Amino acid sequence: MTTAITITDVSITPVAVQDPPLLNSVGVHEPYALRAILQVRTDAGLVGVSEAYGDDPTLDRLRRAAAELPGLSIWDLNGLSRRVAVGLGEVAPDSPTELAGAPSVAKAIASTVSAFEVALYDLQGKATGLRVCDLLGGAVRERVPFSAYLFYKWAGHPGQEPDSFGEALDPAGIVAQARRLVDRYGFGSLKLKGGVFPPDEEIAAIRALREAFPEHPLRLDPNANWSVATSHRVATELAGVLEYLEDPTGGIEGMAEVAAHTGLPLATNMCVTTFDDVPPAVAAGAVSIVLSDHHFWGGLRASQKLAGICETFGLGLSMHSNTHLGVSLAAMTQLAAATPNLTYACDTHSVWQVEEVIEPGAIEISGGAVRVPDGPGLGVTIDQDALARLHEQYLGCGIRRRDDVAAMRVRYPDWTGARPRF
Amino acid sequence: MTTAITITDVSITPVAVQDPPLLNSVGVHEPYALRAILQVRTDAGLVGVSEAYGDDPTLDRLRRAAAELPGLSIWDLNGLSRRVAVGLGEVAPDSPTELAGAPSVAKAIASTVSAFEVALYDLQGKATGLRVCDLLGGAVRERVPFSAYLFYKWAGHPGQEPDSFGEALDPAGIVAQARRLVDRYGFGSLKLKGGVFPPDEEIAAIRALREAFPEHPLRLDPNANWSVATSHRVATELAGVLEYLEDPTGGIEGMAEVAAHTGLPLATNMCVTTFDDVPPAVAAGAVSIVLSDHHFWGGLRASQKLAGICETFGLGLSMHSNTHLGVSLAAMTQLAAATPNLTYACDTHSVWQVEEVIEPGAIEISGGAVRVPDGPGLGVTIDQDALARLHEQYLGCGIRRRDDVAAMRVRYPDWTGARPRF
Repeated sequence: MTTAITITDVSITPVAVQDPPLLNSVGVHEPYALRAILQVRTDAGLVGVSEAYGDDPTLDRLRRAAAELPGLSIWDLNGLSRRVAVGLGEVAPDSPTELAGAPSVAKAIASTVSAFEVALYDLQGKATGLRVCDLLGGAVRERVPFSAYLFYKWAGHPGQEPDSFGEALDPAGIVAQARRLVDRYGFGSLKLKGGVFPPDEEIAAIRALREAFPEHPLRLDPNANWSVATSHRVATELAGVLEYLEDPTGGIEGMAEVAAHTGLPLATNMCVTTFDDVPPAVAAGAVSIVLSDHHFWGGLRASQKLAGICETFGLGLSMHSNTHLGVSLAAMTQLAAATPNLTYACDTHSVWQVEEVIEPGAIEISGGAVRVPDGPGLGVTIDQDALARLHEQYLGCGIRRRDDVAAMRVRYPDWTGARPRF
Repeated sequence: MTTAITITDVSITPVAVQDPPLLNSVGVHEPYALRAILQVRTDAGLVGVSEAYGDDPTLDRLRRAAAELPGLSIWDLNGLSRRVAVGLGEVAPDSPTELAGAPSVAKAIASTVSAFEVALYDLQGKATGLRVCDLLGGAVRERVPFSAYLFYKWAGHPGQEPDSFGEALDPAGIVAQARRLVDRYGFGSLKLKGGVFPPDEEIAAIRALREAFPEHPLRLDPNANWSVATSHRVATELAGVLEYLEDPTGGIEGMAEVAAHTGLPLATNMCVTTFDDVPPAVAAGAVSIVLSDHHFWGGLRASQKLAGICETFGLGLSMHSNTHLGVSLAAMTQLAAATPNLTYACDTHSVWQVEEVIEPGAIEISGGAVRVPDGPGLGVTIDQDALARLHEQYLGCGIRRRDDVAAMRVRYPDWTGARPRF
């Protein structure tokens, strides 16, 4: 009988993890990426874990919401939403810190709810002996496919030694990177983060990948760094080559203009990032694939709701990723395992992280997939020493919110990050 | 630890319950209504219960699906869907037996899944000590409001003594019926099943109800028995009087034509009855309220998916009812308790049933609402003696599928039930 288990207290630990200089449409990853590790304690002695963004505005919201949670049943997900909304009160819309579309009050609440909801699911699993995927309706797949997330990157951060991943700034570099990731992890599909170089260079990179990996589905994601006209041109060039083209241009209207003139499937994690975006996107025929992300859609249940909408409206479904650690990867895997209409391999930044916050062994990528972790709940355990070390790193790193534009200015002082650049 | 609980066997018991001669657009209720009571047994000794339609085609599908279920985990709802689809194989679309729109293979699978899914939720609750509403995300209300379901009716079935409810064939009869139901159960809203008499008579009945109950929200449901022109006329007459007008005419196109010329909210449980109906209905602006029904939408999770779609697309949400017993009422109440955006009181036929299959006390309507049953799972217990008696009644009643048209022909031999009649 698990009815009576309620939350007693929550700890929220910001961490910084080393991150390579990955290039994207607005700039470059900073030397450290921020995450927060949540540990939710209960009167039954169980501890549920979760992972969230670690920037200052997020931490502030998590702490304000956490104050409302003691006494909440681990099963009361609707109550969680209510308490978070109360805790955040008149939360102010915040400027964007992630590549996830325009900010909004609803989005701030959704990401806060998500952070705690995952911990509640972990607790529900620990209370019942079930995996989170079992609580979400049961695994329809025991291995969740992920794609290799390819990035243009510098050899190292400005002023630092080259990192272990090496430079990738042209088609040959991207192919070599892909080869390394496919050899090591067995990925069955490839995604290139584009919007970095002039489109012709990225088209050349895609063509080089096609030649080197003739059977691998390919995706290109310029993060809305192209005009509609540029998007039309690239879509024409890459029709029949790409599995899908992700966010070539910005906004539902722009995406709909692109969609109207190409048979290439368009995907998004930028113009459809809240439920409010869905009706206009459907009406405009703006996209044919949505990349879900439990971190900002509002949690695992909200992601299932999005999956149901995609299924109902004939939209494909994939999964978006920001830089994350193993707790998030476990949550993403548990969710994807229980989502029948996940129609494309998921994204993950995991391969770029050299530091970890969970005990080793639970999560590995092999054969291009992650096996659903065993054991109750998420199936991962926090390595408390690693957590302490990464928190120390957070305290010392000086970064308090992600700013890829500023990181780019270190090398290019006039850089603005304004989009669309091409 | 509940992981290992699996289904061992299923019993499906058809029952017949006395039903008054309630009139509707296609005819009249027969003397008995059919339901099926499912008891799903597990290797842990727990028994989960559910209630479904009891007509022959439904029973055939339930039995074929049941044969696939031994070994299924009580948590594996996705596995249930797969096994039911396998069990039904190339199930043939069946002719309509309920007022729930056109039949389809998808609908046959959905209703079969639903019947077992409710029993699995009952088992999950019994395994964990939780109520079904807790497993569905937590109760947002402990009392679920229902509306008084008013029917034109004969004093008794042809050739039988008058029943205890009395005749209601005109405005005065409907007002008297409403008074009786409001006095006894405390209903806070009133719904008249229309489509029975010429629209002017039903308009008069609504106006009489408005006069007698000035504060009660009023609904009228002619079950698609009106032409578009008639619907326009009635909508104009009753604008500002009705809370909503339900299925005035048939089909998404017809409803959209009506919707285009009235500010009166239109509701449906007829033109939107599967997820396939949602996109065209949304595109056409056909309805502003959907009446969910876990029995034919595919279960409690599917109903939550529908609720999420309604929330996302700005549609209101209410709940449809066919003649049912206490197991279904418990499932409806548990679901409604956990549905934040249930925007209207639910329908129930409960007040018209004089026989019951659950032990008394769990489910009562007072103050116009049903309190969420205590205790694990659905919170109801089958009265095995009552079940045996109602099964005997089923064996003797001669009815094997609902046929309101044939029942009407007993009194009106030329009756066809063809719609729209007005």
